[in-house]
Amino acid sequence: MPEQTGDRGIDRTDPEDAIAAAAKRCSNWGRWGADDVLGTLNFLDEAKRREGAALVRRGASFSLAQSFDADGPQKGWRRRTNPVHTMTDTGLDAERGQGFPHGFGGADDVVFMPLQASTQWDGLGHIFDHGTAYNGRRAGDVVTSEGDRVTGIETASAHIAGRGVLLDVGRVVGTDGELPDGFAITVEHLEATIAAQGASAHVGRGDLVLVRTGRLARARREGWRDYAGGDSPGLSFTTAGWLHRTEIAGVATDTWGFEVRPNEFDGAFQPLHQVVIPHLGLFIGEMWDLDALAADCAADGVYEFLLVAAPLPVTGAVGAPVNPIALK
Amino acid sequence: MPEQTGDRGIDRTDPEDAIAAAAKRCSNWGRWGADDVLGTLNFLDEAKRREGAALVRRGASFSLAQSFDADGPQKGWRRRTNPVHTMTDTGLDAERGQGFPHGFGGADDVVFMPLQASTQWDGLGHIFDHGTAYNGRRAGDVVTSEGDRVTGIETASAHIAGRGVLLDVGRVVGTDGELPDGFAITVEHLEATIAAQGASAHVGRGDLVLVRTGRLARARREGWRDYAGGDSPGLSFTTAGWLHRTEIAGVATDTWGFEVRPNEFDGAFQPLHQVVIPHLGLFIGEMWDLDALAADCAADGVYEFLLVAAPLPVTGAVGAPVNPIALK
Amino acid sequence: MPEQTGDRGIDRTDPEDAIAAAAKRCSNWGRWGADDVLGTLNFLDEAKRREGAALVRRGASFSLAQSFDADGPQKGWRRRTNPVHTMTDTGLDAERGQGFPHGFGGADDVVFMPLQASTQWDGLGHIFDHGTAYNGRRAGDVVTSEGDRVTGIETASAHIAGRGVLLDVGRVVGTDGELPDGFAITVEHLEATIAAQGASAHVGRGDLVLVRTGRLARARREGWRDYAGGDSPGLSFTTAGWLHRTEIAGVATDTWGFEVRPNEFDGAFQPLHQVVIPHLGLFIGEMWDLDALAADCAADGVYEFLLVAAPLPVTGAVGAPVNPIALK
Amino acid sequence: MPEQTGDRGIDRTDPEDAIAAAAKRCSNWGRWGADDVLGTLNFLDEAKRREGAALVRRGASFSLAQSFDADGPQKGWRRRTNPVHTMTDTGLDAERGQGFPHGFGGADDVVFMPLQASTQWDGLGHIFDHGTAYNGRRAGDVVTSEGDRVTGIETASAHIAGRGVLLDVGRVVGTDGELPDGFAITVEHLEATIAAQGASAHVGRGDLVLVRTGRLARARREGWRDYAGGDSPGLSFTTAGWLHRTEIAGVATDTWGFEVRPNEFDGAFQPLHQVVIPHLGLFIGEMWDLDALAADCAADGVYEFLLVAAPLPVTGAVGAPVNPIALK
Repeated sequence: MPEQTGDRGIDRTDPEDAIAAAAKRCSNWGRWGADDVLGTLNFLDEAKRREGAALVRRGASFSLAQSFDADGPQKGWRRRTNPVHTMTDTGLDAERGQGFPHGFGGADDVVFMPLQASTQWDGLGHIFDHGTAYNGRRAGDVVTSEGDRVTGIETASAHIAGRGVLLDVGRVVGTDGELPDGFAITVEHLEATIAAQGASAHVGRGDLVLVRTGRLARARREGWRDYAGGDSPGLSFTTAGWLHRTEIAGVATDTWGFEVRPNEFDGAFQPLHQVVIPHLGLFIGEMWDLDALAADCAADGVYEFLLVAAPLPVTGAVGAPVNPIALK
Repeated sequence: MPEQTGDRGIDRTDPEDAIAAAAKRCSNWGRWGADDVLGTLNFLDEAKRREGAALVRRGASFSLAQSFDADGPQKGWRRRTNPVHTMTDTGLDAERGQGFPHGFGGADDVVFMPLQASTQWDGLGHIFDHGTAYNGRRAGDVVTSEGDRVTGIETASAHIAGRGVLLDVGRVVGTDGELPDGFAITVEHLEATIAAQGASAHVGRGDLVLVRTGRLARARREGWRDYAGGDSPGLSFTTAGWLHRTEIAGVATDTWGFEVRPNEFDGAFQPLHQVVIPHLGLFIGEMWDLDALAADCAADGVYEFLLVAAPLPVTGAVGAPVNPIALK
Repeated sequence: MPEQTGDRGIDRTDPEDAIAAAAKRCSNWGRWGADDVLGTLNFLDEAKRREGAALVRRGASFSLAQSFDADGPQKGWRRRTNPVHTMTDTGLDAERGQGFPHGFGGADDVVFMPLQASTQWDGLGHIFDHGTAYNGRRAGDVVTSEGDRVTGIETASAHIAGRGVLLDVGRVVGTDGELPDGFAITVEHLEATIAAQGASAHVGRGDLVLVRTGRLARARREGWRDYAGGDSPGLSFTTAGWLHRTEIAGVATDTWGFEVRPNEFDGAFQPLHQVVIPHLGLFIGEMWDLDALAADCAADGVYEFLLVAAPLPVTGAVGAPVNPIALK
Repeated sequence: MPEQTGDRGIDRTDPEDAIAAAAKRCSNWGRWGADDVLGTLNFLDEAKRREGAALVRRGASFSLAQSFDADGPQKGWRRRTNPVHTMTDTGLDAERGQGFPHGFGGADDVVFMPLQASTQWDGLGHIFDHGTAYNGRRAGDVVTSEGDRVTGIETASAHIAGRGVLLDVGRVVGTDGELPDGFAITVEHLEATIAAQGASAHVGRGDLVLVRTGRLARARREGWRDYAGGDSPGLSFTTAGWLHRTEIAGVATDTWGFEVRPNEFDGAFQPLHQVVIPHLGLFIGEMWDLDALAADCAADGVYEFLLVAAPLPVTGAVGAPVNPIALK
């Protein structure tokens, strides 16, 4: 079965062919018409949102966002700094007097941040394959200096709410809840996690799948070090077919880069991105904080929930910060 | 009944006393302990979230965010510009070659924005009364140049999900769905709207109330003009008591400044803010886009929904952008 | 004499041909070799700097910079905002205590600004003609999302110091020191100004020429209004030949856009830029404040001085802020 | 001689007293009136500028600025990032078409940067001693969230042009042109350098003194490592008296922090700053690139020059970037 083979074997020395083959096998180009800008979000329909809402049993709420501040992991790669938040008015100014009448005082603030500085969704204009974007468009027709005028993140802003399911691979497969750096999560690991977690962990069309590796927990314990761009557990290139055939709407991890690092090919860079964003049109979330949710799921054995993870609609953005909320 | 009187009469010439009196009547200081940082979000409990989730009947999703871009209404007041979104890599660069291997290409971006530039929640450190912040803290002990170290918006990041209810005052009381600038929405208007909209519009403890004035619809039709800071319909100062006794968790409008402008006192500035943020600890949302949701509510007659409106957790922020999602 | 004709006549209806003809007449491509990145700064040699230094007779110093702050003229055209300067530490924080030992306290700050927000030099990568940059390079080979990797402003950072000469056309030709909006300064006006100002106003090879129109003085008096991008006096398209044959090193004005606005052709946009930046390789300064210097020159009748106007070397910038200093 | 003693002895265990004593000995408060905002720039008069201009013999120009870009030394201390320069239009966009008529194309850009990210002058509002700023003002009366409304860097914008003198302590006292980290430059080292360099190196009232340590050369060779904030050669605390009695107008170094690091007192932080900025009103330049100028001075034996180092006048800034130009 070619697809199964494609999922399993990797020839480390031939990334070009492997990427091309996976792209061909997994392409969703044209599936929802030539004008489509939603990609796999097309799988997330109203029925799926009703299903998600029905999962809210206790009313517990979990924010899956890391913090947005200067103490983050970014080190300047491709000009990505940590967010810089500054005040234009403070309580100290208010105490001193700001010129407002009758004792009114205020504080106000601004932020400068790369849109991929912390918890975020990759938009469909974030990654290209040989100069081509999702749905076969030319990269330069999609994203110019004015931003992504076709698949800008604002096109997804109302859609990402539905059934979420946590696959805590770190807990099921790892040691003390964590996978080591360089650990490639394969289809087998995903399926084993689903099986171990039980009925609530089933994955299917339109779901939003959260894969916990434990990488963030380790960074919390040991310091950021090379969290941004360094070695990390993550999805194997061989999961491309699974990500395609399960027809999930999106997938997010607690790592910087979603896929395993070092990458599985000699000299490649984020090859799974190169397949799943431009060819599948898959929405990928990175740098999510899944730890509190995972502890709760482990405690009650329920791995499904309503997930509302609508990105901030920065017009034309190729990625956007988000404060994902899981309701159980 | 003093409170009723307080709701009704305004002596335009004496804002100091009116603000002090309303602050005293409506104070929640100490209600949830000296260390409380959540204010009215304490009303929003798990039961309320279950109630909200149960309102998702069709699975329809509405984003209530305005866009975040350079075409917004900001004009520089107190250094508030519109968001400036710039690219660090584009599809054109990818087509030309970016130094990545095997045909990989990417686009990336950054944003600079005042946190109150577009759709946002005011945090509890945003407004002070005579140098005092929510729960009786000194303003300068709460918000320094390092941000709000006590009630920073991150403390609210997981909480704002619950039952939302739309009060379309523009449609019920206004003309062609819009209230004129300077129109002060009183308790009578709010109650009349609730009554006109029917059973689904009831308002109570822990609810998130969205008040639509039609001001944004007018700005869309006529251009921004003075949307940011100029004349506008909005809540009357006299609603302070209602906002307090209903025990709602938060309130948001489709206007720049929540309360009516010009303000109802000679020489005052946002007097309702001065009461409800530091004294009630009320969460206020501004610049929300309620039009699509309002059209849907008018069509099906259902004015309640699950509202998930978790602000972006910029550490120490006194306000934060949000992409609020209403699920019906 | 074709060049003279080229300087004088304008066919408003045919900008394409006029631009092409002027570009051909005035091209400096290849003049300093295929690798040249300095353009007309090649005219500014050590002898010219000695000549400039010898003009410092009194030791008076004039800053020719407008201020850099939120109260500037920018209105958001092409995402150009005014500079936003914010504090990360203040004296109020220092009084309260910042965690430093032994009474040490500090203030610190950041700025966000478009590089053309206020007083600046245009770099040679700022303007292209039909996709071609200075010296015949492809625009996309010069300026990518990584900035101008060929003629970035840092290549000019040590060069712009030499003899400056002020041509106060506003004072000589205008009324009360100001030219009206839409006034096109021709070669005749420039030459008449030089003649009226006397011997110290001669212009030649390697000079840095400052043309005062009085537009900034008017904006100071009346408010910014449309200073940024609106109607203005400025150089006529017909001065291209003069700018070329005088072999000046650079030219700056007290206007937003250097050339007259509205432009002199139907439907054109900054046609003189399109000729002189990519074809001459001329350095253009905009939004300079020439008023104090001009008053001094009018008082003592000396229109030449040492000008040190080294742009801030933001790597890869296509323009850069500058605080030009004239020493007389 | 108390002052000499003050210059020489350091009791590492008593920074409080040492700082207080030096502050008392070296105070310039009131020297130029209660309203003074210029501090030691008052020493830099027109005669000094004439003297500086007369030093331009060859017409050689040296930029003393480090670059302003993402590859700088900043690591996030107190939210100081490296400058982030992004494009809003590029040559690639111009080739593709930007909507301008007749083949016009353009590139444009913005920058976000801490004002102390690279080569800069400290303003007089940058450092306080026990809550007090230069000339005895309260820190909070000088610098609020609106910036420095009294001694903002714009007040100095026209003044910093005069005679510069290079003291290449690294070359005279160090090994291979470099002083080791932790090396405290004393008055003896300064005087020895002056003596070794000869007549052109004399230092006096109104001069701008550049002290080269070789620290930047080492960072260039070895990488930035801890250039920003780590160990470094620099001026000894004991030079406070020399900086005062020489009546120099300003002093700059090729290091991050001007004074030696680790500092010479147990548990102190930049004690020399604490004396010379608020008490002397001395202008300090940091992160200057003195290497090319120093090589030239070593070659021709002339250590004096015209220095034009006018900071970018960001209104209210407590420090500002500068591209200093030395003309010999």
